[in-house]
Amino acid sequence: MLFALDAMGGDNAPSEPCKGAVLACTEDDMLSVALVGKKGSIEPHLASARPDVRRRIHIVDADEVIGMGDNPASIRSKKNSSLRIAMEMVRSREAVGCISAGNTGAIVAGGVLVVGRIKGIDRPGLAVPIPALNRKSLLIDVGATVRCKALNLYQFARMGAIYMRSLAGIEAPTIGLFSNGSEDIKGDDVISTAREMLMASELNYGGFVEGKDVPIGSTDIVVFDGFTGNALIKFGEGIGELVKVIIREEIEHKVLPKIGAALMLPALKKIAARFENEKNGGSPLLGVDGIVIKAHGNSKDKAIAGALHVASGFARLKGTDLIKESFEL
Amino acid sequence: MLFALDAMGGDNAPSEPCKGAVLACTEDDMLSVALVGKKGSIEPHLASARPDVRRRIHIVDADEVIGMGDNPASIRSKKNSSLRIAMEMVRSREAVGCISAGNTGAIVAGGVLVVGRIKGIDRPGLAVPIPALNRKSLLIDVGATVRCKALNLYQFARMGAIYMRSLAGIEAPTIGLFSNGSEDIKGDDVISTAREMLMASELNYGGFVEGKDVPIGSTDIVVFDGFTGNALIKFGEGIGELVKVIIREEIEHKVLPKIGAALMLPALKKIAARFENEKNGGSPLLGVDGIVIKAHGNSKDKAIAGALHVASGFARLKGTDLIKESFEL
Repeated sequence: MLFALDAMGGDNAPSEPCKGAVLACTEDDMLSVALVGKKGSIEPHLASARPDVRRRIHIVDADEVIGMGDNPASIRSKKNSSLRIAMEMVRSREAVGCISAGNTGAIVAGGVLVVGRIKGIDRPGLAVPIPALNRKSLLIDVGATVRCKALNLYQFARMGAIYMRSLAGIEAPTIGLFSNGSEDIKGDDVISTAREMLMASELNYGGFVEGKDVPIGSTDIVVFDGFTGNALIKFGEGIGELVKVIIREEIEHKVLPKIGAALMLPALKKIAARFENEKNGGSPLLGVDGIVIKAHGNSKDKAIAGALHVASGFARLKGTDLIKESFEL
Repeated sequence: MLFALDAMGGDNAPSEPCKGAVLACTEDDMLSVALVGKKGSIEPHLASARPDVRRRIHIVDADEVIGMGDNPASIRSKKNSSLRIAMEMVRSREAVGCISAGNTGAIVAGGVLVVGRIKGIDRPGLAVPIPALNRKSLLIDVGATVRCKALNLYQFARMGAIYMRSLAGIEAPTIGLFSNGSEDIKGDDVISTAREMLMASELNYGGFVEGKDVPIGSTDIVVFDGFTGNALIKFGEGIGELVKVIIREEIEHKVLPKIGAALMLPALKKIAARFENEKNGGSPLLGVDGIVIKAHGNSKDKAIAGALHVASGFARLKGTDLIKESFEL
């Protein structure tokens, strides 16, 4: 299976995407990757790959780059950008899917404009699995659709359920609808309508969840608009940073806490890892007609490889087809 | 100065509000508190107060209670509720301000309907100071106005600036407008319009802030709609819980990490305290014509006392008058 990887996307491009492709192809010998970007800047990073791995990595030349600060509409104007070409490879079925650690807005815009929406789906949703306390929860949407209609929230729930059923093997995943409190009177009109749609559906609706339930993991899926979802995952990242800095400051010039920290290191690392989203692999953009995976902007090689594995897992399970079939009915 | 304290509000009522009143009056001999609630259930908790403290604590009988799950509209129908009576004491100027750890929706509704809005203010905002890494930041709104117009966000910024100037002594507090990214193209129409209003104002506007900036504390004030603000502070609480549980699990049956934890205890406590909102005292409801302080629902005596001190500090600095003067211009 061939996946198109945007070699120019993210804070550490092109070195880390290239190294990530090598790593993923080393770990999975069924995998082929087309690195899309400036040929000359990609080649040096492939020099150390084993010959059998190197044979499964192709370079597709693209001389434009969509920067992290560019307007998402660049996906229209920059026709030779690495992201646009990677997405066109998905549309033409040359590639099974594409992965980028680049500009989120452009990835979402390209998902809709280049790869195309699945018929019946109003807006795509970016899904991210997080390691909550009680379970791995899937959060959707974390930034694709900033403001949502009730229909969007309802469709996120349906797509999330298919994703969790096929990939995590959970037969009837519980769905929490994010609100500003757990009582039914909370939320606004959009949330109330979405709640009614979920209650009337065949989905396993588990009620409203609020901010404090998310890290605990009270449901398999948490549904929110992209603005709120984005706020929460970024807030979680900021807290991870905060915890690291405080621990460092606290133990810096003190002997006993330093010994303590050394003894507790495994526990502390486990805590920090919870907040390091990039280590959790990629976030699938659900609702588009092909596999589109967003990797974290500061992804290193392991995170890119993780995103490639997420993509190939989704492809093997025919995730896109499952969503299409569900919305055809 | 007399403050009305809702003795029946919160998860630990009436014992903790009563103990909190005793504690606060012991710590500050200029303070008087009217405990509003069921007389018979309040009295036993005052038995151990010093006579000079006990003399400054009054009981105002109220036979109804607004529960945590009640509709905010209960503030209209339950005319004999402890919260309603406490708020009427503010309206009639019998009390300088009121404090409740009860139903947030009812407190906000009562702030508008009973205490009344300040002229010129469209909607009130609930402000909460959080100990971010670089500074104490004031978050507004964390749940009073679920969905906002641009005018509301702009007014939250103005009120927050007055609060931080008078209470924290920061001459020109920086204002961050919360969005789903730091670039100017982010946000929706409401946020864009609020951004323009802030840029055209005399306020020290510091640009968009996103989720990861909040725990770091990149600005003195962070402005958002009540839905998003509420989501973030509750998410922070949930993460605090998560961290505690993981630490406990990790060290439970292991000797070395347990020793490590003991040595690191001061550092760990400092981290946990960052997420324990209730210890940060009360959240003022800004924009109403009197002092209304919301204490955390699970407040213990210290948190209630903290909220009383926040109220008296705000009263001494004539915070409500400062906001009124600013909006009269």
